[in-house]
Amino acid sequence: MPGGSVPGLSMSSALIAIDWGTTTARAYRLDAGGRIAHMVSAPLGVQKVAAGGFPAALAMLLDDLQSDAAPMIACGMIGSRQGWIEVPYLQCPADAASIASALVPVPQTRLLIVPGLLCRDATGSPDVMRGEETQILGAFADAETRGRFRVVILPGTHSKWTVVGDSGIETFATFLTGELYAVLREHSILGRLAEPGEDRAALERGVRRSLASEASLSHDLFSARTLALTDELAPGAVGDYLSGLLLGAELAAGRRWLERQRVPGERVHLIGDPALCERYARAFAVAGIDATPGPPEAAARGLWRIARHAGLVGVVP
Amino acid sequence: MPGGSVPGLSMSSALIAIDWGTTTARAYRLDAGGRIAHMVSAPLGVQKVAAGGFPAALAMLLDDLQSDAAPMIACGMIGSRQGWIEVPYLQCPADAASIASALVPVPQTRLLIVPGLLCRDATGSPDVMRGEETQILGAFADAETRGRFRVVILPGTHSKWTVVGDSGIETFATFLTGELYAVLREHSILGRLAEPGEDRAALERGVRRSLASEASLSHDLFSARTLALTDELAPGAVGDYLSGLLLGAELAAGRRWLERQRVPGERVHLIGDPALCERYARAFAVAGIDATPGPPEAAARGLWRIARHAGLVGVVP
Repeated sequence: MPGGSVPGLSMSSALIAIDWGTTTARAYRLDAGGRIAHMVSAPLGVQKVAAGGFPAALAMLLDDLQSDAAPMIACGMIGSRQGWIEVPYLQCPADAASIASALVPVPQTRLLIVPGLLCRDATGSPDVMRGEETQILGAFADAETRGRFRVVILPGTHSKWTVVGDSGIETFATFLTGELYAVLREHSILGRLAEPGEDRAALERGVRRSLASEASLSHDLFSARTLALTDELAPGAVGDYLSGLLLGAELAAGRRWLERQRVPGERVHLIGDPALCERYARAFAVAGIDATPGPPEAAARGLWRIARHAGLVGVVP
Repeated sequence: MPGGSVPGLSMSSALIAIDWGTTTARAYRLDAGGRIAHMVSAPLGVQKVAAGGFPAALAMLLDDLQSDAAPMIACGMIGSRQGWIEVPYLQCPADAASIASALVPVPQTRLLIVPGLLCRDATGSPDVMRGEETQILGAFADAETRGRFRVVILPGTHSKWTVVGDSGIETFATFLTGELYAVLREHSILGRLAEPGEDRAALERGVRRSLASEASLSHDLFSARTLALTDELAPGAVGDYLSGLLLGAELAAGRRWLERQRVPGERVHLIGDPALCERYARAFAVAGIDATPGPPEAAARGLWRIARHAGLVGVVP
């Protein structure tokens, strides 16, 4: 594990681990103990690389990483239809072992790609993730999820609520919170009323409104406009109020989702960008939910864990 | 009333009635019987006219209308902060008489502007409309809303659910449905997956999903992506499915809102663009709600009714 020592691990093994997303590729050189020896980040995400450009993008990353002949593993959108090769989704529940046995090699390279996960809700409707499964595996050792459920939330453009238990990642649900915020802020009448500013009280006011509202998001959103029109919300507070409305709606809906899974939701873990996790933690506090930040560099940890299960490095514990 | 005869009305009266919105200005010359003698429509909406440009815009409309010295009345965004002059909102409940007594003249013109309405929900949070109040008044004569409640829905960028009763427009709630559809379709990952096409079954599928989902809109929206990814939704059906999700969410939330007002919601009236009303009626049919289309040219009818109450034309009935 990064930052920790792994007894019994062969000291000759090492790994190139790549968290290859939509906008950014982040590559890590991990030493034989799974510690991060070096990291590079480049704007070489899947959306930024033209078709056929992935071999050159990888070469650029590896050169910056001063890599040797170590095995290579990548997670994220690099395995999507818009990525290098399309790696089929693995069905939930899935754990480090089942994910490790479903790695897909990229032809003519020594790169293996981690599959994304697919689950279906009670109505049979699918939900998907790519990359988050690796971060979740990096957040907890097997022993930490044995005999109990943990709720792990990964805030972002498409926020993921996941239940982790004995079978690994048991199920999950996606909320479009970040994308809704971006399109409303940039392209809607609500965004046109907003002026730059931060307002913690407005964020919490938005959260409370959504928690109290019987989940009428498309109605509640309009209050960002009317409160500004009637001078009950300052222009510099509109952005954080809007953010609070969307976070509150996600929180209320996520809590109902957990109830349907019969999983207690008083305590959750957050993985992701620290500033965004801090924002989520504030929203959860309004609802009386205890949100614990997960470890940093969860993707690198998760890739190391999967690589160990795949026998690419060291020994399987 | 347009299209009907009004006994006792002075035949010398006539009115210029303008429905002056965000993108379009629609001006009507009404004869002494309240019938539409002539109509012009121009892209001279509030957003299209520069500050100080309203006198010229009005002159252009009047010229096209071949108007005489008749009184003039306008409703809509022309009375907003971005319009010609800002007309304060009138508090709900409001009827034709109270609205008529709150008309605001534009200095140096013979134009009177109809105030928009403001209501507050149980938590004190405000909601607003400008223009819709006039369309609602145009849809029903006093006798039609006496001793009973009518639910009137005006689909659009900002869809309005209104309760009309003995006191006129009793209360209302806005849903951002049209704007959410536009920003998601044009600027989100959901829109990027959509291809042109119409699919009535997909619309109804989206409505059903939202009705069944415990109102988790930001989660349900993501299903437009996952169903497309797993080939369970054709690219040409994504747009109508997304529309159905948003309509279903509005319908479910609107129904809960009516329950809180203790107003029965099995039957509603729709006012607005015929194609959009037809789409709403299909969504309502999925929920077993009977949706009746309102009269055409409701704004002209409403302006006539307000003008009569204000003594601008004919006699107050």
